[in-house]
Amino acid sequence: MEQRLYQQLRFVLKIDQEKNIFRQTHLSGHGRNENDAEHAWHMAVMAYLLREYANEEVDIGRVMLMCLIHDIIEIEAGDTYAYDEQAKKTQKAREDAAKEKIYSLLPEDQKQELVALFDEFEDCETAEAKFAHAMDNLQPLLLNNANGGGDWREHQVSAGQVYGRQKKTRLGSEKLFEITEQIIEENIRKGNLKE
Amino acid sequence: MEQRLYQQLRFVLKIDQEKNIFRQTHLSGHGRNENDAEHAWHMAVMAYLLREYANEEVDIGRVMLMCLIHDIIEIEAGDTYAYDEQAKKTQKAREDAAKEKIYSLLPEDQKQELVALFDEFEDCETAEAKFAHAMDNLQPLLLNNANGGGDWREHQVSAGQVYGRQKKTRLGSEKLFEITEQIIEENIRKGNLKE
Repeated sequence: MEQRLYQQLRFVLKIDQEKNIFRQTHLSGHGRNENDAEHAWHMAVMAYLLREYANEEVDIGRVMLMCLIHDIIEIEAGDTYAYDEQAKKTQKAREDAAKEKIYSLLPEDQKQELVALFDEFEDCETAEAKFAHAMDNLQPLLLNNANGGGDWREHQVSAGQVYGRQKKTRLGSEKLFEITEQIIEENIRKGNLKE
Repeated sequence: MEQRLYQQLRFVLKIDQEKNIFRQTHLSGHGRNENDAEHAWHMAVMAYLLREYANEEVDIGRVMLMCLIHDIIEIEAGDTYAYDEQAKKTQKAREDAAKEKIYSLLPEDQKQELVALFDEFEDCETAEAKFAHAMDNLQPLLLNNANGGGDWREHQVSAGQVYGRQKKTRLGSEKLFEITEQIIEENIRKGNLKE
Protein backbone atom coordinates (compact mmCIF):
# COMPACT_ATOMS: atom_id res chain seq x y z
CA MET A 1 0.00 0.00 0.00
CA GLU A 2 1.30 3.47 -0.82
CA GLN A 3 2.46 5.63 2.07
CA ARG A 4 -0.26 8.24 1.48
CA LEU A 5 -3.16 5.82 1.67
CA TYR A 6 -1.51 4.04 4.60
CA GLN A 7 -1.36 7.33 6.53
CA GLN A 8 -4.96 8.14 5.69
CA LEU A 9 -6.22 4.76 6.87
CA ARG A 10 -4.16 5.00 10.06
CA PHE A 11 -5.85 8.33 10.82
CA VAL A 12 -9.26 6.84 10.01
CA LEU A 13 -8.63 4.05 12.51
CA LYS A 14 -7.28 6.47 15.12
CA ILE A 15 -10.39 8.63 15.12
CA ASP A 16 -12.50 5.58 15.90
CA GLN A 17 -11.39 6.33 19.46
CA GLU A 18 -13.52 9.49 19.50
CA LYS A 19 -16.47 7.16 20.15
CA ASN A 20 -14.97 6.49 23.58
CA ILE A 21 -14.77 10.14 24.65
CA PHE A 22 -17.84 10.77 26.76
CA ARG A 23 -19.42 14.14 27.46
CA GLN A 24 -21.45 15.41 30.39
CA THR A 25 -24.56 15.60 28.21
CA HIS A 26 -27.04 12.73 28.37
CA LEU A 27 -29.02 11.38 25.42
CA SER A 28 -32.72 12.22 25.31
CA GLY A 29 -35.05 9.83 27.11
CA HIS A 30 -32.75 10.08 30.15
CA GLY A 31 -30.21 7.98 28.30
CA ARG A 32 -26.52 7.37 28.85
CA ASN A 33 -23.81 9.99 28.45
CA GLU A 34 -23.24 11.07 24.88
CA ASN A 35 -19.90 10.56 23.14
CA ASP A 36 -18.04 13.05 20.97
CA ALA A 37 -18.53 11.19 17.69
CA GLU A 38 -22.30 11.04 17.92
CA HIS A 39 -22.42 14.65 19.16
CA ALA A 40 -20.45 15.68 16.04
CA TRP A 41 -22.77 13.66 13.79
CA HIS A 42 -25.82 15.30 15.34
CA MET A 43 -24.32 18.79 14.93
CA ALA A 44 -23.52 18.21 11.25
CA VAL A 45 -27.06 17.03 10.41
CA MET A 46 -28.51 19.96 12.40
CA ALA A 47 -26.27 22.42 10.57
CA TYR A 48 -27.61 21.21 7.25
CA LEU A 49 -31.26 21.31 8.29
CA LEU A 50 -31.08 24.66 10.09
CA ARG A 51 -28.76 26.51 7.68
CA GLU A 52 -31.56 28.89 6.67
CA TYR A 53 -31.26 30.48 10.13
CA ALA A 54 -27.55 31.40 9.83
CA ASN A 55 -27.03 35.17 10.17
CA GLU A 56 -24.78 35.20 7.12
CA GLU A 57 -24.68 32.93 4.10
CA VAL A 58 -22.49 29.92 4.87
CA ASP A 59 -20.68 27.28 2.83
CA ILE A 60 -22.63 24.45 4.41
CA GLY A 61 -20.16 21.74 3.36
CA ARG A 62 -17.44 23.55 5.31
CA VAL A 63 -19.71 23.97 8.32
CA MET A 64 -20.56 20.27 8.31
CA LEU A 65 -16.92 19.24 8.04
CA MET A 66 -16.03 21.64 10.87
CA CYS A 67 -18.74 20.07 13.02
CA LEU A 68 -17.50 16.57 12.19
CA ILE A 69 -13.87 17.22 13.14
CA HIS A 70 -14.13 19.81 15.91
CA ASP A 71 -13.70 17.33 18.77
CA ILE A 72 -11.15 14.93 17.29
CA ILE A 73 -8.38 16.41 19.45
CA GLU A 74 -10.31 15.28 22.53
CA ILE A 75 -9.15 11.73 21.77
CA GLU A 76 -5.86 12.87 23.28
CA ALA A 77 -6.89 15.93 25.30
CA GLY A 78 -10.11 14.55 26.83
CA ASP A 79 -13.44 16.35 27.05
CA THR A 80 -13.42 19.56 29.07
CA TYR A 81 -16.82 20.22 30.63
CA ALA A 82 -18.07 23.67 29.68
CA TYR A 83 -18.49 24.68 33.33
CA ASP A 84 -15.33 23.11 34.79
CA GLU A 85 -13.21 26.22 35.43
CA GLN A 86 -10.24 24.23 36.75
CA ALA A 87 -9.96 21.98 33.69
CA LYS A 88 -10.41 24.95 31.38
CA LYS A 89 -7.12 26.47 32.65
CA THR A 90 -5.08 23.65 31.09
CA GLN A 91 -7.39 23.13 28.13
CA LYS A 92 -5.45 25.16 25.55
CA ALA A 93 -2.08 23.49 26.22
CA ARG A 94 -3.60 20.01 26.27
CA GLU A 95 -5.49 20.65 23.06
CA ASP A 96 -2.54 22.14 21.17
CA ALA A 97 -0.39 19.09 21.90
CA ALA A 98 -3.25 16.78 20.95
CA LYS A 99 -3.85 18.61 17.69
CA GLU A 100 -0.24 18.22 16.60
CA LYS A 101 -0.12 14.57 17.58
CA ILE A 102 -3.33 13.41 15.94
CA TYR A 103 -3.29 15.39 12.71
CA SER A 104 0.33 14.43 12.10
CA LEU A 105 -0.91 10.96 11.25
CA LEU A 106 -2.31 12.38 7.99
CA PRO A 107 -0.38 13.25 4.82
CA GLU A 108 1.03 16.78 5.21
CA ASP A 109 -1.49 18.51 2.91
CA GLN A 110 -4.48 17.01 4.70
CA LYS A 111 -2.93 17.75 8.09
CA GLN A 112 -2.54 21.42 7.12
CA GLU A 113 -6.09 21.58 5.80
CA LEU A 114 -7.80 20.02 8.81
CA VAL A 115 -5.69 21.93 11.35
CA ALA A 116 -6.60 25.17 9.55
CA LEU A 117 -10.28 24.21 9.62
CA PHE A 118 -10.09 23.33 13.31
CA ASP A 119 -8.31 26.62 14.10
CA GLU A 120 -10.96 28.48 12.13
CA PHE A 121 -13.61 26.83 14.28
CA GLU A 122 -11.77 27.75 17.47
CA ASP A 123 -11.23 31.38 16.41
CA CYS A 124 -14.96 31.73 15.73
CA GLU A 125 -14.58 34.64 13.34
CA THR A 126 -15.87 33.35 10.00
CA ALA A 127 -19.57 32.87 9.24
CA GLU A 128 -18.99 29.10 9.05
CA ALA A 129 -17.25 28.93 12.44
CA LYS A 130 -19.94 31.04 14.09
CA PHE A 131 -22.70 28.82 12.76
CA ALA A 132 -20.82 25.65 13.77
CA HIS A 133 -20.49 27.07 17.30
CA ALA A 134 -24.23 27.73 17.35
CA MET A 135 -24.72 24.01 16.64
CA ASP A 136 -22.16 23.05 19.30
CA ASN A 137 -24.25 25.00 21.82
CA LEU A 138 -27.76 24.22 20.64
CA GLN A 139 -27.30 20.47 20.32
CA PRO A 140 -26.64 19.70 24.04
CA LEU A 141 -29.17 22.38 25.05
CA LEU A 142 -31.92 20.54 23.17
CA LEU A 143 -30.97 17.19 24.72
CA ASN A 144 -30.70 18.60 28.20
CA ASN A 145 -33.99 20.45 27.84
CA ALA A 146 -35.64 17.20 26.68
CA ASN A 147 -34.36 15.60 29.88
CA GLY A 148 -35.84 18.27 32.17
CA GLY A 149 -32.49 20.02 32.62
CA GLY A 150 -30.99 17.02 34.41
CA ASP A 151 -27.40 17.84 33.41
CA TRP A 152 -27.69 21.36 34.82
CA ARG A 153 -29.28 20.17 38.04
CA GLU A 154 -26.63 17.50 38.51
CA HIS A 155 -23.84 20.10 38.21
CA GLN A 156 -25.80 22.93 39.88
CA VAL A 157 -25.24 25.17 36.90
CA SER A 158 -26.61 28.73 37.01
CA ALA A 159 -28.51 30.60 34.31
CA GLY A 160 -25.57 33.04 34.12
CA GLN A 161 -23.19 30.21 33.29
CA VAL A 162 -25.49 28.88 30.59
CA TYR A 163 -25.96 32.33 29.08
CA GLY A 164 -22.17 32.79 29.18
CA ARG A 165 -21.64 29.72 27.10
CA GLN A 166 -24.66 30.09 24.84
CA LYS A 167 -23.95 33.69 23.88
CA LYS A 168 -21.86 32.52 20.92
CA THR A 169 -25.03 31.11 19.39
CA ARG A 170 -26.16 34.68 18.73
CA LEU A 171 -23.08 35.29 16.57
CA GLY A 172 -24.11 32.42 14.30
CA SER A 173 -27.88 32.76 14.39
CA GLU A 174 -30.09 35.41 15.97
CA LYS A 175 -33.09 33.19 15.31
CA LEU A 176 -31.69 30.15 17.08
CA PHE A 177 -30.54 32.36 19.94
CA GLU A 178 -34.19 33.37 20.44
CA ILE A 179 -35.02 29.70 20.92
CA THR A 180 -32.05 29.34 23.25
CA GLU A 181 -33.33 32.19 25.41
CA GLN A 182 -36.81 30.68 25.54
CA ILE A 183 -35.38 27.35 26.67
CA ILE A 184 -33.17 28.92 29.33
CA GLU A 185 -35.98 31.09 30.71
CA GLU A 186 -38.32 28.12 30.84
CA ASN A 187 -35.73 26.10 32.76
CA ILE A 188 -35.24 28.94 35.23
CA ARG A 189 -39.01 29.04 35.81
CA LYS A 190 -39.05 25.30 36.40
CA GLY A 191 -36.18 25.51 38.87
CA ASN A 192 -33.81 23.47 36.70
CA LEU A 193 -31.38 26.37 36.51
CA LYS A 194 -30.38 28.59 39.44
CA GLU A 195 -30.97 32.28 38.70
CA MET B 1 -42.17 29.30 17.72
CA GLU B 2 -43.08 29.06 14.03
CA GLN B 3 -44.37 25.73 12.78
CA ARG B 4 -41.43 25.24 10.40
CA LEU B 5 -38.74 25.60 13.07
CA TYR B 6 -40.84 23.54 15.48
CA GLN B 7 -40.95 20.67 12.96
CA GLN B 8 -37.22 20.92 12.30
CA LEU B 9 -36.37 20.78 16.00
CA ARG B 10 -38.72 17.86 16.54
CA PHE B 11 -36.87 15.95 13.81
CA VAL B 12 -33.52 16.94 15.33
CA LEU B 13 -34.61 15.51 18.67
CA LYS B 14 -36.06 12.38 17.05
CA ILE B 15 -32.80 11.45 15.34
CA ASP B 16 -31.03 11.52 18.69
CA GLN B 17 -32.45 7.99 18.96
CA GLU B 18 -30.09 6.80 16.22
CA LYS B 19 -27.42 6.70 18.93
CA ASN B 20 -29.32 3.78 20.48
CA ILE B 21 -29.36 1.63 17.33
CA PHE B 22 -26.48 -0.80 17.71
CA ARG B 23 -24.73 -2.65 14.91
CA GLN B 24 -22.93 -5.98 14.84
CA THR B 25 -19.59 -4.22 14.33
CA HIS B 26 -17.37 -3.65 17.35
CA LEU B 27 -15.21 -0.59 17.92
CA SER B 28 -11.45 -1.03 17.47
CA GLY B 29 -9.51 -2.15 20.53
CA HIS B 30 -12.10 -4.94 21.00
CA GLY B 31 -14.59 -2.31 22.15
CA ARG B 32 -18.36 -2.36 22.50
CA ASN B 33 -20.80 -2.61 19.60
CA GLU B 34 -20.91 0.46 17.42
CA ASN B 35 -24.08 2.52 17.01
CA ASP B 36 -25.50 3.92 13.79
CA ALA B 37 -24.81 7.58 14.59
CA GLU B 38 -21.10 7.12 15.20
CA HIS B 39 -20.86 4.80 12.17
CA ALA B 40 -22.39 7.56 10.04
CA TRP B 41 -20.01 10.16 11.49
CA HIS B 42 -17.02 7.94 10.73
CA MET B 43 -18.18 7.32 7.15
CA ALA B 44 -18.63 11.06 6.49
CA VAL B 45 -15.13 11.94 7.72
CA MET B 46 -13.67 9.03 5.71
CA ALA B 47 -15.53 10.14 2.59
CA TYR B 48 -13.94 13.57 2.84
CA LEU B 49 -10.42 12.27 3.47
CA LEU B 50 -10.53 9.52 0.83
CA ARG B 51 -12.44 11.38 -1.90
CA GLU B 52 -9.38 11.37 -4.17
CA TYR B 53 -9.93 7.61 -4.65
CA ALA B 54 -13.49 7.88 -6.00
CA ASN B 55 -13.76 6.42 -9.50
CA GLU B 56 -15.66 9.45 -10.71
CA GLU B 57 -15.60 13.03 -9.52
CA VAL B 58 -18.08 13.44 -6.67
CA ASP B 59 -19.86 16.35 -4.99
CA ILE B 60 -18.32 15.60 -1.63
CA GLY B 61 -20.87 17.65 0.35
CA ARG B 62 -23.63 15.45 -1.04
CA VAL B 63 -21.66 12.28 -0.28
CA MET B 64 -21.11 13.41 3.31
CA LEU B 65 -24.77 14.26 3.82
CA MET B 66 -25.76 10.91 2.32
CA CYS B 67 -23.43 9.17 4.76
CA LEU B 68 -24.84 11.15 7.68
CA ILE B 69 -28.49 10.33 6.98
CA HIS B 70 -28.33 6.86 5.40
CA ASP B 71 -29.23 4.98 8.59
CA ILE B 72 -31.80 7.35 10.15
CA ILE B 73 -34.65 5.04 9.12
CA GLU B 74 -33.15 2.34 11.34
CA ILE B 75 -34.49 4.28 14.34
CA GLU B 76 -37.83 2.73 13.38
CA ALA B 77 -36.78 -0.23 11.24
CA GLY B 78 -33.86 -1.48 13.34
CA ASP B 79 -30.43 -2.51 12.07
CA THR B 80 -30.42 -5.44 9.65
CA TYR B 81 -27.17 -7.38 9.87
CA ALA B 82 -25.57 -7.68 6.45
CA TYR B 83 -25.44 -11.48 6.69
CA ASP B 84 -28.86 -12.13 8.29
CA GLU B 85 -30.77 -13.54 5.30
CA GLN B 86 -34.02 -13.95 7.28
CA ALA B 87 -34.14 -10.32 8.44
CA LYS B 88 -33.22 -9.11 4.96
CA LYS B 89 -36.48 -10.55 3.56
CA THR B 90 -38.57 -8.04 5.52
CA GLN B 91 -36.02 -5.22 5.35
CA LYS B 92 -37.52 -3.29 2.42
CA ALA B 93 -41.06 -3.14 3.84
CA ARG B 94 -39.84 -2.20 7.31
CA GLU B 95 -37.57 0.50 5.92
CA ASP B 96 -40.19 2.03 3.60
CA ALA B 97 -42.63 2.47 6.49
CA ALA B 98 -39.88 3.89 8.69
CA LYS B 99 -38.79 6.35 6.00
CA GLU B 100 -42.30 7.76 5.65
CA LYS B 101 -42.80 8.02 9.40
CA ILE B 102 -39.53 9.70 10.32
CA TYR B 103 -39.07 12.11 7.44
CA SER B 104 -42.68 13.27 7.77
CA LEU B 105 -41.61 15.09 10.92
CA LEU B 106 -39.78 17.61 8.72
CA PRO B 107 -41.29 20.48 6.71
CA GLU B 108 -42.45 19.09 3.35
CA ASP B 109 -39.57 20.53 1.28
CA GLN B 110 -36.93 19.08 3.57
CA LYS B 111 -38.76 15.76 3.75
CA GLN B 112 -38.76 15.54 -0.05
CA GLU B 113 -35.11 16.47 -0.24
CA LEU B 114 -33.85 13.98 2.34
CA VAL B 115 -36.06 11.15 1.11
CA ALA B 116 -34.71 11.73 -2.41
CA LEU B 117 -31.14 11.70 -1.09
CA PHE B 118 -31.79 8.51 0.86
CA ASP B 119 -33.39 6.85 -2.20
CA GLU B 120 -30.41 7.93 -4.29
CA PHE B 121 -28.13 6.21 -1.78
CA GLU B 122 -30.22 3.04 -1.85
CA ASP B 123 -30.37 2.94 -5.66
CA CYS B 124 -26.58 3.19 -5.80
CA GLU B 125 -26.47 4.54 -9.33
CA THR B 126 -24.93 8.01 -9.03
CA ALA B 127 -21.22 8.61 -8.41
CA GLU B 128 -22.06 10.02 -4.97
CA ALA B 129 -24.17 7.01 -3.95
CA LYS B 130 -21.51 4.56 -5.14
CA PHE B 131 -18.80 6.31 -3.16
CA ALA B 132 -21.01 6.51 -0.06
CA HIS B 133 -21.60 2.75 -0.35
CA ALA B 134 -17.85 2.21 -0.55
CA MET B 135 -17.58 4.03 2.80
CA ASP B 136 -20.47 2.02 4.26
CA ASN B 137 -18.52 -1.15 3.42
CA LEU B 138 -14.97 -0.06 4.16
CA GLN B 139 -15.68 1.47 7.57
CA PRO B 140 -16.78 -1.73 9.37
CA LEU B 141 -14.18 -3.74 7.41
CA LEU B 142 -11.40 -1.60 8.87
CA LEU B 143 -12.76 -1.91 12.41
CA ASN B 144 -13.29 -5.63 12.13
CA ASN B 145 -9.83 -6.13 10.63
CA ALA B 146 -8.32 -4.13 13.50
CA ASN B 147 -10.06 -6.55 15.88
CA GLY B 148 -8.62 -9.67 14.23
CA GLY B 149 -11.85 -10.40 12.35
CA GLY B 150 -13.77 -11.01 15.57
CA ASP B 151 -17.14 -10.04 14.12
CA TRP B 152 -16.75 -12.53 11.25
CA ARG B 153 -15.60 -15.31 13.54
CA GLU B 154 -18.49 -14.72 15.93
CA HIS B 155 -21.03 -15.04 13.09
CA GLN B 156 -19.04 -17.68 11.14
CA VAL B 157 -19.10 -15.52 8.03
CA SER B 158 -17.49 -16.88 4.85
CA ALA B 159 -15.18 -15.07 2.44
CA GLY B 160 -17.88 -15.44 -0.22
CA GLN B 161 -20.38 -13.58 1.93
CA VAL B 162 -17.91 -10.78 2.59
CA TYR B 163 -17.02 -10.47 -1.08
CA GLY B 164 -20.74 -10.43 -1.90
CA ARG B 165 -21.30 -7.45 0.32
CA GLN B 166 -18.04 -5.66 -0.42
CA LYS B 167 -18.36 -5.85 -4.20
CA LYS B 168 -20.21 -2.53 -4.23
CA THR B 169 -17.02 -0.86 -3.03
CA ARG B 170 -15.54 -1.46 -6.49
CA LEU B 171 -18.34 0.63 -8.06
CA GLY B 172 -17.29 3.59 -5.93
CA SER B 173 -13.53 3.12 -5.82
CA GLU B 174 -11.31 0.62 -7.60
CA LYS B 175 -8.44 1.73 -5.39
CA LEU B 176 -10.25 1.11 -2.12
CA PHE B 177 -11.52 -2.20 -3.44
CA GLU B 178 -7.87 -3.27 -3.86
CA ILE B 179 -7.37 -2.61 -0.14
CA THR B 180 -10.60 -4.48 0.60
CA GLU B 181 -9.33 -7.52 -1.30
CA GLN B 182 -6.01 -7.41 0.56
CA ILE B 183 -7.80 -7.32 3.89
CA ILE B 184 -10.16 -10.17 2.99
CA GLU B 185 -7.35 -12.38 1.67
CA GLU B 186 -5.27 -11.73 4.78
CA ASN B 187 -8.20 -12.72 7.00
CA ILE B 188 -8.74 -15.91 5.02
CA ARG B 189 -5.03 -16.80 5.52
CA LYS B 190 -5.36 -16.14 9.25
CA GLY B 191 -8.44 -18.35 9.49
CA ASN B 192 -10.72 -15.45 10.50
CA LEU B 193 -12.88 -16.00 7.45
CA LYS B 194 -14.01 -19.39 6.14
CA GLU B 195 -13.06 -19.92 2.48
